[in-house]
Parts: sequence; structure tokens; C-alpha cells
Amino acid sequence: MPDKPWNVEPYVTQERIRTIHYGIGAIGAEVVRLCLSRPEIEIVGAIDSHPAKAGLDLGEAANAGRTLGINVAYEAEPLLRDVYADVVVHSIGSSLTTVYPQLISIISSEKSVISSCEELSFPWVRQPEISRKLDRRARETGVRILGTGVNPGFVMDFLPLVLATASQQVRSIHVERVVDVGSRRMQLQRKVGVGLSVEGFQRGANEGNIGHVGLRESLLMLADSMAWRLDDVTETLEPLVARRRHKTEFFSVERGYVRGLRQSVRGLSAGREVVRLDLEMSLGVKDPRDVIRIDGTPPIEVRIPGGLQGDQATAAIVTNCIPAVVHSRAVGLLTMRDLPVVPYIRPRPQPREEFE
Amino acid sequence: MPDKPWNVEPYVTQERIRTIHYGIGAIGAEVVRLCLSRPEIEIVGAIDSHPAKAGLDLGEAANAGRTLGINVAYEAEPLLRDVYADVVVHSIGSSLTTVYPQLISIISSEKSVISSCEELSFPWVRQPEISRKLDRRARETGVRILGTGVNPGFVMDFLPLVLATASQQVRSIHVERVVDVGSRRMQLQRKVGVGLSVEGFQRGANEGNIGHVGLRESLLMLADSMAWRLDDVTETLEPLVARRRHKTEFFSVERGYVRGLRQSVRGLSAGREVVRLDLEMSLGVKDPRDVIRIDGTPPIEVRIPGGLQGDQATAAIVTNCIPAVVHSRAVGLLTMRDLPVVPYIRPRPQPREEFE
Repeated sequence: MPDKPWNVEPYVTQERIRTIHYGIGAIGAEVVRLCLSRPEIEIVGAIDSHPAKAGLDLGEAANAGRTLGINVAYEAEPLLRDVYADVVVHSIGSSLTTVYPQLISIISSEKSVISSCEELSFPWVRQPEISRKLDRRARETGVRILGTGVNPGFVMDFLPLVLATASQQVRSIHVERVVDVGSRRMQLQRKVGVGLSVEGFQRGANEGNIGHVGLRESLLMLADSMAWRLDDVTETLEPLVARRRHKTEFFSVERGYVRGLRQSVRGLSAGREVVRLDLEMSLGVKDPRDVIRIDGTPPIEVRIPGGLQGDQATAAIVTNCIPAVVHSRAVGLLTMRDLPVVPYIRPRPQPREEFE
Repeated sequence: MPDKPWNVEPYVTQERIRTIHYGIGAIGAEVVRLCLSRPEIEIVGAIDSHPAKAGLDLGEAANAGRTLGINVAYEAEPLLRDVYADVVVHSIGSSLTTVYPQLISIISSEKSVISSCEELSFPWVRQPEISRKLDRRARETGVRILGTGVNPGFVMDFLPLVLATASQQVRSIHVERVVDVGSRRMQLQRKVGVGLSVEGFQRGANEGNIGHVGLRESLLMLADSMAWRLDDVTETLEPLVARRRHKTEFFSVERGYVRGLRQSVRGLSAGREVVRLDLEMSLGVKDPRDVIRIDGTPPIEVRIPGGLQGDQATAAIVTNCIPAVVHSRAVGLLTMRDLPVVPYIRPRPQPREEFE
């Protein structure tokens, strides 16, 4: 018996997990800072082609408060070729077709990838060709690819599915996420249309510059996991118009101009709404929240008052998935539902003889 | 491209998963009824040594509303030896030392086990010898063992760990579960002391007949997963005394007698409380609920108004874990944190050539 009967005996020291950070924007930098606090992770490289980042010390580029002796490389290929690492944390953009060549480079260098690319969170349905290519190449090189983040990746897909585990006959899933963007990044406020005229919002929406990417991916992961064959998927995106003046650090919004957006996707199966995801991101939100409702036996309603803070939670999820991806027995293109993601550092207890 | 671009193409038909049901009590019977509704599951056997169950048709024993042509066997060994199955659903009791011989029989017959045995939910710390033996035998025969249920197994351990994935620096986890047992099973009302005198409650608690089993297992899973080395674990169990008369289908409780219990475990690490689990199960509850609070960055509070309905949720979790356990790449003694449990029937999309 161990002397403290409530502790599992310590295991042999593990090798640290070696990471390269590809993209040192807001999310990428937060992941870097978080990895620095994790004893099981060793940062061995960084890549960012932006002139404001390339060439800097990573500590400076990521606002880590100290230098790290790691130069942010402008070009990915030489670093991926020359530096040994287990995982590349990739945080470049939402469009899978845009980042696809980067992902192929990474997995071809025999490194796993965790990416915040929204369209990678569940790409099988909308981009089957790219999905198959990524999966095949990752299997060839024996690595894993995972797209994740708070949304898509967690609050509107993975967490509802985990909760659905506790219900017997799930008839429908509804998730509502209401975010106050007033104190958030300028980039996020811009993405939801803050300060635009209604006409400007519509133009931005038509051009694909306004709106959240990932609602469809979340819906498709839910429907596929629940084996709901969808007859129809509809998406709506509308501006929320200010009734009074709103001010943020970056914008002043007059009455009649846009303070944010409301975006919804609905999935119908046999004429019945089986999934609905409602997202509101705006200024002047009274009651920010996440609410998950599962119509099943038992019915389940889960409320997260205030809602999960997006950037912090995304950085946490990406970082906590690093050991999960490294220790995964599966290879290839994975999604959040495919691996145990509980953020434990140590592998599950093993029979002692395996270490002797 | 598929004709409906939001559906993954259908896969080849899978073999149905063959189950044997060992223990047809309240939970076991509910799992049987649920399995009957699942096209991917085929029930092939049943075991219950209770004279009220053995010899009956399983449909009758499980109140399924129809006969199934499956006889409930009194003895386990011959059935386990002669009937091919993938998984045995085991629902006999809370004590791991009591059910250990049954579990060894099952895994020795090369069948995986999912058990509602509370002490099996995270047995590594309190029962390391038994854990190692189960793990070794299951690895030898290539099968999996999982202990699960709503609590332990979900609301006080697995779900908080999933939520902790979204927080950067988790300092502590607090879970509160408040259950109104007024309309629940007699066995449950008895287990929490309903109708006893305070003296009777204390005696029952001392003899181990009163109280919830599993709080320590949940605490230990949390602490181990978060790599918190515990200095001390304390547990308290106290009666809740009725201030007015309460009536249920099974009990009438006078003022001054016990209407339920409050049970808590606390884990300290470096002198700081890192885990606290508070469970109240009683009559006359005003606001039944589950609340999970994670002190981290971001802080996360999750509320489940009404709380997860225990028996329904346990049956759901056990049943939904059947495909997860069958498709798990890991073998041996598993816990909820070790496998992807999202209740999807289909394996993740595979490159088509694997099927051609």
C-alpha cells in the first residue's frame, strides 16, 4: 500500500512533449503563454509570416514577458524539416481550403497538428475530398490532426454530445450562446459587424467577412453523432441594431447602426427540427450565457451563466488537447468526439511490471 | 459529392453488438429496456440469481412489455462459457470486493464488462491490488472493464473534467448535487436514511448501510486527473432532520426523524482545498440541482436545474458506453476519462478504400 492511500504511485518520468507554434496571433500567443506554464510541454519552434512577428524572439512576439531564445521563423518548411517536434499548434485562419497546404506540410513532416481552424473541427461532410486527403496523409505518417476551440469544438458540439451520453432517447439538441463582445478583441468586434450600417453589414455578410464560422460544422457533428439523417439545413444571419449609443475601446456605435449579430443554423430530419444552434454576439448584452437543452429521457438543461469566455477557453482547450492528441491511440484526421480529452497529464495507471 | 451535402455517406453495415445482462434489478432492467430500442444492440443472454428473477423470460423480468425468448439464468458460469457476446452489462452492487469474482469470470470468458458498481468507477487508488488483477486479466483476454453511472461516473467526476478542458489554470473543483428522493425508488430512499431516527441513521452509517458510495472515487479521479497530490481527504455524513411531516409512497416521516442525508468529501493539496463534493439526497428539497464550479481561467460555473435524473441517466450512460467500450482501442481496466464516450453509433468516417 502506498503511504498516502489516496494517491496513485508516481510513474516514470515522461518525455516532455515538444511543440511548434504556427501563427502567433491573439489565440496563438495565448496558447504559447499557457504552454510555458506547463511542465510537460517544451516549446521548440515558432512560425509566423507576418512582418510584425517574424524574426522576433517568441517571448516578445507572444507577450510572454521574457525572451525564450526561440526565433519566430518566417518560413515554415525549413523549420518543419529541421526541428523535431511532436505537435504543431496551428492558429492561422478559419478557412480549411486556405490552410490546407500548411496542414499537409505539417503532417508530411511527421508532426501532429492541433488547429484552431474552425472548418477543421468537423470537415468530413462539407469538405470530404480534403478530409480524406488529410486523413490519408496523416495515417501514412502516423500522426493526428485535430481542429478545436471553444466554438466550434466545445460549447455547441462536444459538450452537448457529452451531455447526451446521460440521456436515453435524444429527440433534439438546442444550444444558445449569447456573448457580450464589448470588452473583447477588435478583430472579434469587427467580425460581428460592430459599428457598421445595416447596408454595410449585409455587404460584409454577402462577402463572407461578417459572421461566425463553424455553426454548420457543430450542427453536422451533432447530427452525424446522433445518427440523424438531415433533410435540410438552413442558416440565418441578421444584424442587431443599436437602440442607443454604445462605446467600446475600438468603436463608437450610433443609434441605428449595428451592435452585433444573431446567427442560427437549424437541421431538419424527417421534417422535424433536431438541431438548432443560436449564436448572438453583440454589444449591450444583458445576460451573457450558454444554454444547452437536450430533449430526451431524462431531459437535460445546462446553463453556464456568463458563458464560456471565448479566447481563454479556446487557448485552454487547444493546450489541454496537446497531451490527448499525443497519447491518442488513433491516427489520422480526428474530431473532438474521437479522443478522450480529459486534461490529465499522466497516462492512466499501468500495471507496474510494464515499467520494471 | 453526396446528393445531400450535409450527410456523411453511409458505411457498410456493422455487426450488431451482442450483450448479456448480469443483474436485472432496477438499473439492470432499465438498461435492458433501453437496449431493446437500440438497433445496434442484440441481447443474447441474462443472469440473475435472485429467485424472483431467475427462470423468468427476460422480457418479463425486465418489465419490457413482451417476451424475448431469453431465459434469465440462475448461474453465470455456464452462460458465460457457452454464449458468445461482446459486452456484459453488470449491475449487482456497490462493493468491488463483493463483485470482483463475478467480474473476473466475465473477463475470463473474453467478454468486456460495463458495470454500475460504484467502487469500480475509479478503483486504482483505494483498491490497487484488485485493480491490477482486473487490468492484467482483461489485457490477457483482450477485453475492457468500465465502471460507470451518473454518480460516480458522470456528474461529479467525468463532466467536471470535461469542463476543466476549457479552463487554463484549474485551482479547484467544487460539485454540489441536490436530489429530491421523494418520488424515487424505495431502495434509494432507504439508502439515504428516510424514516429513521437520528440514532438509527448513525448506526446504519456506522454499519455502512446508509450513505452514498462513490464520492471518494469521484474525488480521486478528479485529483489524479488534475495531478493534484492530496495531503488529506476527509468525508462527512450527516442526517437531515424533518421539521415537518413528509410522506412518500413508501415512508411517512415524522418531525424529528430523518428525511435524508448530506454527505461531503474534501481533498486538500498543500493545505488548500482543491476538491469538494457535496451531495444532498432527501425529501422536501426546494431546488434540486447539480452545480459544477471550476476555479480557473476562465472560471466556469455550470448549473443543471432539477439535476440529472439518477436512474434514467445511469441507464443512459451505461447503454451509451456499450459502443464506446466495444470500439475502444484500449484494453484493460478503463475509467470514464480513458475513452471517447460520445454516444455515436457509427465509427468515425474512414477513407472509402478501407471498405473496398
